[in-house]
Amino acid sequence: MPEIRSNPITGDWVIIATERARRPEEFTQKAAKPALPPLAPDCPFCPGNESKTPAEQFRVDGTDGGWLVRAVPNRFAALTPEGTGERHTNGFRTHLDGVGLHEVIIEAPAHDATMARLPIPHLVQVLQVYRHRLRAFYKDRRIEHVILFKNHGEAAGTSLVHPHSQIVGMPVLPSQLRARLEEAMRHWGNAGECLYCRTLHEELRDGARMIAENSSFAAFVPYAALSPFHIWFFPKHHSAYFGEATDAQLADLAGVLHDVLRRLDVGLADPDYNFVIRSLSPQESALKYFHWYISLVPRVTKSAGFELGTGMFINTALPERSAEFLRRVSLPA
Amino acid sequence: MPEIRSNPITGDWVIIATERARRPEEFTQKAAKPALPPLAPDCPFCPGNESKTPAEQFRVDGTDGGWLVRAVPNRFAALTPEGTGERHTNGFRTHLDGVGLHEVIIEAPAHDATMARLPIPHLVQVLQVYRHRLRAFYKDRRIEHVILFKNHGEAAGTSLVHPHSQIVGMPVLPSQLRARLEEAMRHWGNAGECLYCRTLHEELRDGARMIAENSSFAAFVPYAALSPFHIWFFPKHHSAYFGEATDAQLADLAGVLHDVLRRLDVGLADPDYNFVIRSLSPQESALKYFHWYISLVPRVTKSAGFELGTGMFINTALPERSAEFLRRVSLPA
Repeated sequence: MPEIRSNPITGDWVIIATERARRPEEFTQKAAKPALPPLAPDCPFCPGNESKTPAEQFRVDGTDGGWLVRAVPNRFAALTPEGTGERHTNGFRTHLDGVGLHEVIIEAPAHDATMARLPIPHLVQVLQVYRHRLRAFYKDRRIEHVILFKNHGEAAGTSLVHPHSQIVGMPVLPSQLRARLEEAMRHWGNAGECLYCRTLHEELRDGARMIAENSSFAAFVPYAALSPFHIWFFPKHHSAYFGEATDAQLADLAGVLHDVLRRLDVGLADPDYNFVIRSLSPQESALKYFHWYISLVPRVTKSAGFELGTGMFINTALPERSAEFLRRVSLPA
Repeated sequence: MPEIRSNPITGDWVIIATERARRPEEFTQKAAKPALPPLAPDCPFCPGNESKTPAEQFRVDGTDGGWLVRAVPNRFAALTPEGTGERHTNGFRTHLDGVGLHEVIIEAPAHDATMARLPIPHLVQVLQVYRHRLRAFYKDRRIEHVILFKNHGEAAGTSLVHPHSQIVGMPVLPSQLRARLEEAMRHWGNAGECLYCRTLHEELRDGARMIAENSSFAAFVPYAALSPFHIWFFPKHHSAYFGEATDAQLADLAGVLHDVLRRLDVGLADPDYNFVIRSLSPQESALKYFHWYISLVPRVTKSAGFELGTGMFINTALPERSAEFLRRVSLPA
């Protein structure tokens, strides 16, 4: 019997189609990925080609004299830095300049690196660059919302294989976020507690969907996971703004992120995935009812007309089984 | 300069990234599709294999004694007919049985047919079967919402090439629909008019994004199209429920649908696409503020982390240029 589960955070239902459930192993990445060289002469993100990217905005150096992580404007930016956030309306239709900031965060010099295989101290540096760029973007007063995300692999929409993430600052608030804020406010109003803190509390207590945790972070497959191996990373401390994470917290996040990415890498043969950091702005950092978190979605299934027409998802794997599978992956030392 | 446009119907913003805009021709279907036989012995939807599908629920016969259109339960249904819509909650988490109806509408006997190439009278029959099944699904009082959709081509998520559509009746209301109802109600409250009627009025008056129209339907690329060649088909008469469309209206819809599908087929070399019919239930048919319509999205671009993290879309084609391109396609007689 399939089951329909509610996701209180998105306010939506997910169909867990156990009748057509597949075994977790069946979601292993199908297309074998070509072996990459450590340095690709044509790659704009490789060392030696720094002049092929727009002017560097920030960098962290490695111990060998070269850079370890770089942030540069996206050459194919969706939004441009010039313009205002002023709305123009004819009384019905509204538009504004496509003003905003869009950078690429090059995660490592090695062309063949993947985030899952970066040493933890290196991953800490990447997260610190995320935090730095997020804070910097919010200093531009035209920016209403900033989204940090990573597209890993072709099915996840990446065009350059060199490991990188992206950050986009935009002059509007996505309605998806507004809807989540409304759900969160409603829960606060009804229950007098942060919906996200409660979700985390329930997941920790239940345990069936937990994958990894340490003193300040927990990673789990949500109760109403939208697809197989959909994973949430929650800070255990209440915070609405990723930019206020401390160095110690980022070190803990790197530990959990590394562990989970390795489990996906080993257990599912380096699957394509997207992840996003959902955070509010520094002006909203004190909100009691919202909690920043990371959502990771492996691209192991395709969305089609049903998802387009309803916004709902059909998950063909039981969340408890996805989590159990990942917990059981044995990681090489 | 990119532009950010509001979509009053979804309440969301779309980035029209003209800086990276591609010419309409560049969205032509890339992967050549294999030539198909008119009859495939292994295809469960082909004539002669009727016993390979679950028991037929409805059919329309052709003039040659065989069937023209069939509706059968989906063998890999996401929801099952047994169970109740009763919610179970522990005070925080809520779930219910995955009860619902899920049928496949086989659009033609020919394995190598495509909806774009069906004669108009045949397409009218398909639409009449849609209407019949929609009405039948809503007779089941456990069903809260029914979605009709089509996945054409592999990139659109179809697994069987034989031309077919799907209809799913579910015991919950998708939150996406609830959000649209809220936007529509708000517009009615503020402006005293149906948001959809106004949208259609504005599109007809402007004309720059129109593709095709006749006395009762219009097809256009919306002002804030979410992707290249995103198309809306609107009835010109106000109606919230597809099930109350008359035979004459379905004949007009078939005319516009055929014209537009042919323009996509010829102009973009049979692109993969999804379409959905967004309609309310018969109980809501008299609502003044909602209007049923069809949304078609060709699968010519990929969504990635940005879309996942914001719910917003980046359209790399100017809607006015997409519409102009389709208007200019010359159709063979």
